[in-house]
Amino acid sequence: MAIITLLTDFGQRDPYVAQMKGVVMRICRDAIIVDITHEIIPQNIEQGAFILYTTVPYFPPGTVHVAVVDPGVGTERKGLIIDCGDYVLVGPDNGLLLPAARRGKKFDVYEITNRRYFMEGVTHTFHGRDIFAPVAAHIARGVEIREIGRKIDEYVDMSLGFGKVRDGKIEGKIVHIDRFGNLITNIEGRTLLDRAKYGKVIDVEIGGLQLKMPFYKSYGYAGENELLLTIGGNGFVEIGVNMGSAFEKLKKGMGERVTLAL
Amino acid sequence: MAIITLLTDFGQRDPYVAQMKGVVMRICRDAIIVDITHEIIPQNIEQGAFILYTTVPYFPPGTVHVAVVDPGVGTERKGLIIDCGDYVLVGPDNGLLLPAARRGKKFDVYEITNRRYFMEGVTHTFHGRDIFAPVAAHIARGVEIREIGRKIDEYVDMSLGFGKVRDGKIEGKIVHIDRFGNLITNIEGRTLLDRAKYGKVIDVEIGGLQLKMPFYKSYGYAGENELLLTIGGNGFVEIGVNMGSAFEKLKKGMGERVTLAL
Amino acid sequence: MAIITLLTDFGQRDPYVAQMKGVVMRICRDAIIVDITHEIIPQNIEQGAFILYTTVPYFPPGTVHVAVVDPGVGTERKGLIIDCGDYVLVGPDNGLLLPAARRGKKFDVYEITNRRYFMEGVTHTFHGRDIFAPVAAHIARGVEIREIGRKIDEYVDMSLGFGKVRDGKIEGKIVHIDRFGNLITNIEGRTLLDRAKYGKVIDVEIGGLQLKMPFYKSYGYAGENELLLTIGGNGFVEIGVNMGSAFEKLKKGMGERVTLAL
Repeated sequence: MAIITLLTDFGQRDPYVAQMKGVVMRICRDAIIVDITHEIIPQNIEQGAFILYTTVPYFPPGTVHVAVVDPGVGTERKGLIIDCGDYVLVGPDNGLLLPAARRGKKFDVYEITNRRYFMEGVTHTFHGRDIFAPVAAHIARGVEIREIGRKIDEYVDMSLGFGKVRDGKIEGKIVHIDRFGNLITNIEGRTLLDRAKYGKVIDVEIGGLQLKMPFYKSYGYAGENELLLTIGGNGFVEIGVNMGSAFEKLKKGMGERVTLAL
Repeated sequence: MAIITLLTDFGQRDPYVAQMKGVVMRICRDAIIVDITHEIIPQNIEQGAFILYTTVPYFPPGTVHVAVVDPGVGTERKGLIIDCGDYVLVGPDNGLLLPAARRGKKFDVYEITNRRYFMEGVTHTFHGRDIFAPVAAHIARGVEIREIGRKIDEYVDMSLGFGKVRDGKIEGKIVHIDRFGNLITNIEGRTLLDRAKYGKVIDVEIGGLQLKMPFYKSYGYAGENELLLTIGGNGFVEIGVNMGSAFEKLKKGMGERVTLAL
Repeated sequence: MAIITLLTDFGQRDPYVAQMKGVVMRICRDAIIVDITHEIIPQNIEQGAFILYTTVPYFPPGTVHVAVVDPGVGTERKGLIIDCGDYVLVGPDNGLLLPAARRGKKFDVYEITNRRYFMEGVTHTFHGRDIFAPVAAHIARGVEIREIGRKIDEYVDMSLGFGKVRDGKIEGKIVHIDRFGNLITNIEGRTLLDRAKYGKVIDVEIGGLQLKMPFYKSYGYAGENELLLTIGGNGFVEIGVNMGSAFEKLKKGMGERVTLAL
């Protein structure tokens, strides 16, 4: 049984995601469909790219990941299939798929061209359901990718710009805030771990604030309501609060610059 | 494998939906259960009816759709099964199922009567789990509908009152607001498309406001933060904002009258 | 096909739940994975325990329930498997699993010890994905529990402290607020039903407020916007409002004491 995942900014109060699932099952009845999340901030392509990047490694080989954060739907932007060897990505050509694609064994980009694999009566406003879902379902049931699209060399690229080390400082930014209010940076955990031991107190600058935070293995090592640095479950440095929310405490959000002085 | 969908106003922080799924799987272990949405505004039967109406066509033949927006639970209101030919609807007798039922090839309404197909120990407050879920599961595993209920001619009806054309104006109302803040009307897309070309600027009256909006194929044709009219993925006219939220911009909500002057 | 349920406080905007599902499917491809809820109030172990307690009876025999509300992740707290006969519970040793465990036919507690059944490269911050999900998947595909852990007698216990009867009064507290704003107490329905008939008006004290509420079979028996007592779908006494929200009306929340004078 093929696995298809869905990542979108569609939310959950609308029937959009269910309609995509219905379309998939009309083509590939026994597909296992898994939601990654549908709560990407509307039109925030970078956040979607980050979440997809962190999640593809946990799925079994052969998974087809459909991602739709698509402010350009219905305009001239292309639709893409990216063959990454162990997994396949399907979605709009706006950079969303690229960081996740670069984690794969290979990296062959196809423009979706063969309308035979679209839903009948494609709308201008919902390609997630009308193009990307049926294309993913056809791939899941074994149609060759080169039958659905043509290989291309030009596409919209995106980099998550992983944290940089400069003058003894690590510089990055907030790319996601999770439900606990943890502020998740694009600084890879090993960048910090190579330079600091657990227990060290680190000077942190975030959006004009100058703070000192201990670097701990996990939240529970900090005092209740105390700020800390830790390496989150996805391998990135995050600012958290034990039994509380760093977002509530600091009122700093998406895109904010973060500097760690070692 | 049978497909069962669930549409409710139960939200997702409670275990109500999971309990329905558990009950289904006790009866029909290998059913594929798909959530349409559980974020219908509490007790808003009309919104639930609209979402169900838009979504049934996308599922494979044979799907059983369970819908529960049920302020009258535990009172004398009946429970219904509606056989629509290609699909079956199960839920309370309050109009919720009727617009979706009318999209089917047939339209046979049954009152649920045979307690043999209920869960043991039916409560007064949760028929979604105790009656509708097990009834749907029994239908999914092949029990005849006439074995579970009796055919009836009287039931609570509902019409979505699709937009009307009068004196060169199209009149409708807002029946749903999606996650992007698009204000979705009950005016069918073809009603507008038969009378206006893409690119035309249209006089729109919404809740006392007089506005001019271009009618575009999709959001991306408008300037950033510009209001527009478009035909959404479900075939209805909607008021949107490119890269923004029409709901935030106009502060107009559910039930608001909309008039398009051509 | 094995059934695995997930209950967490991870929310749905993050990829944490999807990563757990990916890990499960890498080990037990055809597991049916069902979400109970991911909207437990962050770190609220008691609320998680209550929801799990109410929900385990509705699932088929053999289900493996994974629950993660885990403020102590990455510290010395143990991980547990509890064999309840008809079902198995997996999660942190902080009381979360105990009320649900006590509903089972048996009650054998194991500490998770065998790292062979963990994910490679366990993090300090996400044992839900790295330990509990793979352990559950191995149990689902048939690995013996005693192969994964060792039986223990000491663990963190928790009681939901079901409502007490004292001097003709029933005393309890609010343990959950559902999406409709119903205030759900830990007073079992039969405790009230043994002492009062439907229709009786009861003196209710909640957080300093003195109120009179009728005890009804269901919400629809009360007048619109009227407060009432009823027995909810999970068998506990709740304070509701017909066509409205008791939470909005009373502004009383989690943990608030409730006394019913008969």
